[in-house]
Amino acid sequence: MSAHVYKMIELVGSSPNGSDDAIQNAIAKAGQSVKHMDWFEVVETRGCIIEGKIAYWQVTIKVGFRVEDH
Amino acid sequence: MSAHVYKMIELVGSSPNGSDDAIQNAIAKAGQSVKHMDWFEVVETRGCIIEGKIAYWQVTIKVGFRVEDH
Amino acid sequence: MSAHVYKMIELVGSSPNGSDDAIQNAIAKAGQSVKHMDWFEVVETRGCIIEGKIAYWQVTIKVGFRVEDH
Amino acid sequence: MSAHVYKMIELVGSSPNGSDDAIQNAIAKAGQSVKHMDWFEVVETRGCIIEGKIAYWQVTIKVGFRVEDH
Amino acid sequence: MSAHVYKMIELVGSSPNGSDDAIQNAIAKAGQSVKHMDWFEVVETRGCIIEGKIAYWQVTIKVGFRVEDH
Amino acid sequence: MSAHVYKMIELVGSSPNGSDDAIQNAIAKAGQSVKHMDWFEVVETRGCIIEGKIAYWQVTIKVGFRVEDH
Amino acid sequence: MSAHVYKMIELVGSSPNGSDDAIQNAIAKAGQSVKHMDWFEVVETRGCIIEGKIAYWQVTIKVGFRVEDH
Amino acid sequence: MSAHVYKMIELVGSSPNGSDDAIQNAIAKAGQSVKHMDWFEVVETRGCIIEGKIAYWQVTIKVGFRVEDH
Amino acid sequence: MSAHVYKMIELVGSSPNGSDDAIQNAIAKAGQSVKHMDWFEVVETRGCIIEGKIAYWQVTIKVGFRVEDH
Amino acid sequence: MSAHVYKMIELVGSSPNGSDDAIQNAIAKAGQSVKHMDWFEVVETRGCIIEGKIAYWQVTIKVGFRVEDH
Amino acid sequence: MSAHVYKMIELVGSSPNGSDDAIQNAIAKAGQSVKHMDWFEVVETRGCIIEGKIAYWQVTIKVGFRVEDH
Amino acid sequence: MSAHVYKMIELVGSSPNGSDDAIQNAIAKAGQSVKHMDWFEVVETRGCIIEGKIAYWQVTIKVGFRVEDH
Repeated sequence: MSAHVYKMIELVGSSPNGSDDAIQNAIAKAGQSVKHMDWFEVVETRGCIIEGKIAYWQVTIKVGFRVEDH
Repeated sequence: MSAHVYKMIELVGSSPNGSDDAIQNAIAKAGQSVKHMDWFEVVETRGCIIEGKIAYWQVTIKVGFRVEDH
Repeated sequence: MSAHVYKMIELVGSSPNGSDDAIQNAIAKAGQSVKHMDWFEVVETRGCIIEGKIAYWQVTIKVGFRVEDH
Repeated sequence: MSAHVYKMIELVGSSPNGSDDAIQNAIAKAGQSVKHMDWFEVVETRGCIIEGKIAYWQVTIKVGFRVEDH
Repeated sequence: MSAHVYKMIELVGSSPNGSDDAIQNAIAKAGQSVKHMDWFEVVETRGCIIEGKIAYWQVTIKVGFRVEDH
Repeated sequence: MSAHVYKMIELVGSSPNGSDDAIQNAIAKAGQSVKHMDWFEVVETRGCIIEGKIAYWQVTIKVGFRVEDH
Repeated sequence: MSAHVYKMIELVGSSPNGSDDAIQNAIAKAGQSVKHMDWFEVVETRGCIIEGKIAYWQVTIKVGFRVEDH
Repeated sequence: MSAHVYKMIELVGSSPNGSDDAIQNAIAKAGQSVKHMDWFEVVETRGCIIEGKIAYWQVTIKVGFRVEDH
Repeated sequence: MSAHVYKMIELVGSSPNGSDDAIQNAIAKAGQSVKHMDWFEVVETRGCIIEGKIAYWQVTIKVGFRVEDH
Repeated sequence: MSAHVYKMIELVGSSPNGSDDAIQNAIAKAGQSVKHMDWFEVVETRGCIIEGKIAYWQVTIKVGFRVEDH
Repeated sequence: MSAHVYKMIELVGSSPNGSDDAIQNAIAKAGQSVKHMDWFEVVETRGCIIEGKIAYWQVTIKVGFRVEDH
Repeated sequence: MSAHVYKMIELVGSSPNGSDDAIQNAIAKAGQSVKHMDWFEVVETRGCIIEGKIAYWQVTIKVGFRVEDH
């Protein structure tokens, strides 16, 4: 990792299927505009309940990616 | 949300299948006596180990529901 | 306080006017069904943004009230 | 614990004698109206000082109890 | 919220008038360059004192906004 | 700030009017005996409820002030 | 509590007898120079072990006392 | 639990499949050398991203096991 | 303490008598296999309730002991 | 600071030399694309060990910079 | 430590040279008016950035000192 | 990291020279008996003061190392 510098962004992914899937959605989306993503950390897991059932899982993650040299 | 007031209750759900399933059990159970549940937050994830295997996943959640007007 | 026992409940109040007003709404609402409320603590302050303006302030509080003897 | 669901309530017990005694008072009181209490956790320990001496110990605990099936 | 992904940014707003006003300044400013802001959370409340009076309130908030599809 | 050293004290201000006012009371009071106060941070916001209304807002703050050279 | 302002100091009391006794020692000592102490909160409980036994209990508390008017 | 004493160890399990699976790997591995494991708690959930996809889930857990008498 | 290195282990002690006693049990037990224990810190205080009474106090502590030179 | 609004970004700097140097690397790098940086806060200090020695220090910081008017 | 009582004060030291140096400045300054200082704990590490370089390191510490008998 | 499992131990290193040096001492010492150490995290930074000067820096770290297959 030597002289690299990483930036962290915070994202909230959502999914009707489960908490792991919500994380994968957030990373897939971020991957469209961010390169060199290296790791993520889960910050918070929440969800939305509609008529007594979990309608969406919402997981807040931090994603670290390498800042490229100019 | 305007003038609504929400109350939060803390529940521990359990399941032999996984952490997401434990949350769903807690919400299904709460739904038998609580109406207008709107969201949940995961507070803690634990589990019980029997003979070297996870016997039960136990997830503590907070559930928010709307307090009805009298 | 001697031999008294207090119970704490967690509420989310909301208001379009400000954070202090959201707390007062939650306490006014709780006062309809809970007696002997003695103190509150602010747990979290959030809000809902619509078209770039704060539409509602949402403040999560804990309210302590004295449990009456039976 | 299998398919059980537990609910947690937050209580503040007080006692002139000490912190352990304040917890026991809170649980004894709660036991008058709540059945199937299984465990507690200490959240905060405070106290009231009158004329330079501890007049009351006040301990905030969370108590978990099993929600019965309907 | 289904398949949406949200990004969170952290801002510090300031105001000579009060803490609520400092939050509104931060959101008004952010609204000039960020679209689809949905909610905020208060992270920290501080202030600057000059000659024994509060000169500026400084409130750190996190703002969540929807990431648009490309 | 160079070689300066700052000391922080913790105060609880109260006010019947609101949370911002409770902070200002604490700082005004502290200013009677402490010089060179530079900033404050909010640690906790609580309040006292009497007959279902907020009687006093109580805000705990840390105040930083410059230690003068001897 | 109206217009009062309280100051909080942080103390570490110690005792060979137990955690409650360590708190009482800290408050008794503080009472020699501080007037109008009103409450305390436990911040941390530690201890010193000598030859496999607890030699001293060390409890860090915050004590709140009323600042008198000048 | 009477006179039992439990020791807690902190482990990081990893899995390409999901967060629950990473926990099960850590417990299965620990079970090769530790007996009488009774419960676990999730401390942190992270992951490693390679080419825009989650390559490994990494979950830090604490595992409690009973210390046997000598 | 100069060039010494200390290791910390996390233990859960239990006792039917009280929280201080649960800590002493954990340290007495640890002292059978660990030498040079120097201090402990309380991490969590919980308990087990049976028929409305505290059956066992369970206190999680960290114990620091000096690593001997080889 | 009056009506200014600040944005905070989270960075991870690394260095083989020490923790202070890792912070300076992160700020130097950020300074290539961000103007008006005013302060930083340390969030986490970690490091990478290779063959029993610290190969890289990795320090996560938050950097606050002033948002310019448009 | 037996029957001693310790008081803790919170200080912010600053230095243009590094984080360790900022701590030493705070302790050297405190030593001019406080006797019997025994230990310190780091609470927060921040810094001030001027023209893209760290101008001052600012480290908040708590210092514990023994309260003398009267 | 695939199917690997890591164990984390908590150590306190000390040094008269500075905080970075205290960490290096802890890791050098741990390296005498632990293989495959991969990373560390700083948990707490404290120090011992003798006659108004820092006599020892004491840094608590967590060290992660790979558990070998049997």
